[in-house]
Amino acid sequence: MKARATASPNIALVKYWGKRDSQLKLPLNDSISVTLAGDFQSRTTVEFSEDYAQDSLLLDGVEASEKEMQNSFLVLDYLRKLAAVDFRASVVSQNTFPKGVGIASSSSGYAALAAAASAALGLKPDARQLSIAARLGSGSASRSIIGGFAHWKAGSMDDGSDSFAVQIADENHWPELRIVTAITSAEPKIIGSTEGMKRTVETSALFRQRLSTIPAKVEGIRQAILGKNMHSLLPAVMAESNSLHAVMLDSWPPIIYLNDTSKRIIAAVHELNDASGEIIAGYTFDAGPNAHILTEQKYLHEVEKAIKGEGVKSLHVSRPGEGSRIL
Amino acid sequence: MKARATASPNIALVKYWGKRDSQLKLPLNDSISVTLAGDFQSRTTVEFSEDYAQDSLLLDGVEASEKEMQNSFLVLDYLRKLAAVDFRASVVSQNTFPKGVGIASSSSGYAALAAAASAALGLKPDARQLSIAARLGSGSASRSIIGGFAHWKAGSMDDGSDSFAVQIADENHWPELRIVTAITSAEPKIIGSTEGMKRTVETSALFRQRLSTIPAKVEGIRQAILGKNMHSLLPAVMAESNSLHAVMLDSWPPIIYLNDTSKRIIAAVHELNDASGEIIAGYTFDAGPNAHILTEQKYLHEVEKAIKGEGVKSLHVSRPGEGSRIL
Repeated sequence: MKARATASPNIALVKYWGKRDSQLKLPLNDSISVTLAGDFQSRTTVEFSEDYAQDSLLLDGVEASEKEMQNSFLVLDYLRKLAAVDFRASVVSQNTFPKGVGIASSSSGYAALAAAASAALGLKPDARQLSIAARLGSGSASRSIIGGFAHWKAGSMDDGSDSFAVQIADENHWPELRIVTAITSAEPKIIGSTEGMKRTVETSALFRQRLSTIPAKVEGIRQAILGKNMHSLLPAVMAESNSLHAVMLDSWPPIIYLNDTSKRIIAAVHELNDASGEIIAGYTFDAGPNAHILTEQKYLHEVEKAIKGEGVKSLHVSRPGEGSRIL
Repeated sequence: MKARATASPNIALVKYWGKRDSQLKLPLNDSISVTLAGDFQSRTTVEFSEDYAQDSLLLDGVEASEKEMQNSFLVLDYLRKLAAVDFRASVVSQNTFPKGVGIASSSSGYAALAAAASAALGLKPDARQLSIAARLGSGSASRSIIGGFAHWKAGSMDDGSDSFAVQIADENHWPELRIVTAITSAEPKIIGSTEGMKRTVETSALFRQRLSTIPAKVEGIRQAILGKNMHSLLPAVMAESNSLHAVMLDSWPPIIYLNDTSKRIIAAVHELNDASGEIIAGYTFDAGPNAHILTEQKYLHEVEKAIKGEGVKSLHVSRPGEGSRIL
């Protein structure tokens, strides 16, 4: 009853910000993401045994925090129920990320956990079940189950059974696409996502209006991905990121993740597109100041040149990658 | 037919951002401001004469731009019609502001122009007419006619005859109030207010929602001013500033005025209030990165200590001041 799995982080193109159920991680809106290939992975081994008195979780060699234990327990328990098994588990997870790379490990971590635990339990879950299991650990992990481009449907059921990610297109659909991550700060987050989302939902007068704009954005971005259409995808992705950071700023007290280097990159991307006379780059920012810039391979050099400079600590280039899988 | 007048800039507590008529400077929402005393003044001399072939305008010794000429012409012409006079005017205006002080001179400038031109024409306009005349030069100037605390009512008439500022309370109402201006950048604006407003109105999906929140804010802030209630005034003023900058960020392309020093000041003010266990300071930012911090005299030292530091180029302290007047 032991298995090992890997999963990669994903970058949201339509953002997940706001929960309708904090325990089940049910979101207030659909989101869309691209799963990253290669360098960034969470590799997780899960073993169930009647010898274990309780679940244990080691992350990069360190015992997990209480919060991580609680979230992992939700994933493990969902799968134990599916398998009708009551053994405790030993979980050992390793991230291949360089530290301070500005990419959160929660999406890949809980996706790898869900995949490894399923296999260890002898389950053959479909992507829907795996996505739901991963979602219970961290909302964004529901999307890292899926390779290429994922659409996490918010769903409407109270039990979350219709809240899972589906594939828009796989990792081979758009091989020229690149995601350039520009690290602009190695400092810890000013506020975590869970607390930040709660604050925005409870205090921003603009947040409900933002929610009402999401369905059209989701459909537009889905179509742009299917058509590999940079001209419609990238402006929509940038505007969506700006909308997210606008409602963060409108929260009380305000949440401001973007720093002067983020601002400089935003301006540089707009200038680059203006100077090119076409849309060759588009930024998106999660709950942090680090930029993820979408472009295509042929523009990579130009984009890197435009955004490099003061305040950019490092650049990492990724392409669309596979979903979670058993090793 | 010659007169001289002075007026001071005002700091908006509920912001003016978005026009329903760009020629007449009719706003989409009510706004509230405090007029500053003393150091910052525009002093303007206007002379009408049949000898002048055209209006001329000298600002701090430099010939005015075409845009400034157009706006001044609207003010002068409104008053010429009231006086049934058709002479051209020579206008000479001087600002007492230190350069790069981060306070726009348009509010004081057009208010002083309206006051001086009225007097030169022998008019005895009431505050309503003066406010309308000043508004035609620059929307915010409608408030600098008024001493102390001004409420610019958006009005609903197409001709702007009901769009003017009225006094909430005069400059002696709250003598302990201080406005600390922290200069965080001497660089020119990334985008002017006229262009920025237009962009927000035309592109921000959140802007209409912001507008719907204004009436309640206006009433709350008006009551807080009347009651000299720091605890209700300052959080409302801060949230209003954040709401403005949120819709700016939500514009396309995004407008981002706040810089890392603005962010640091925002955090410092929240920390100061938290540490004090009461609300002793509140920030507001116009279309720029410079902070205006409201506090009372007894907290001034504490507030200055909290916001001084990296990135703050200078601090200026003001108190509520008089409206425009003839010299």
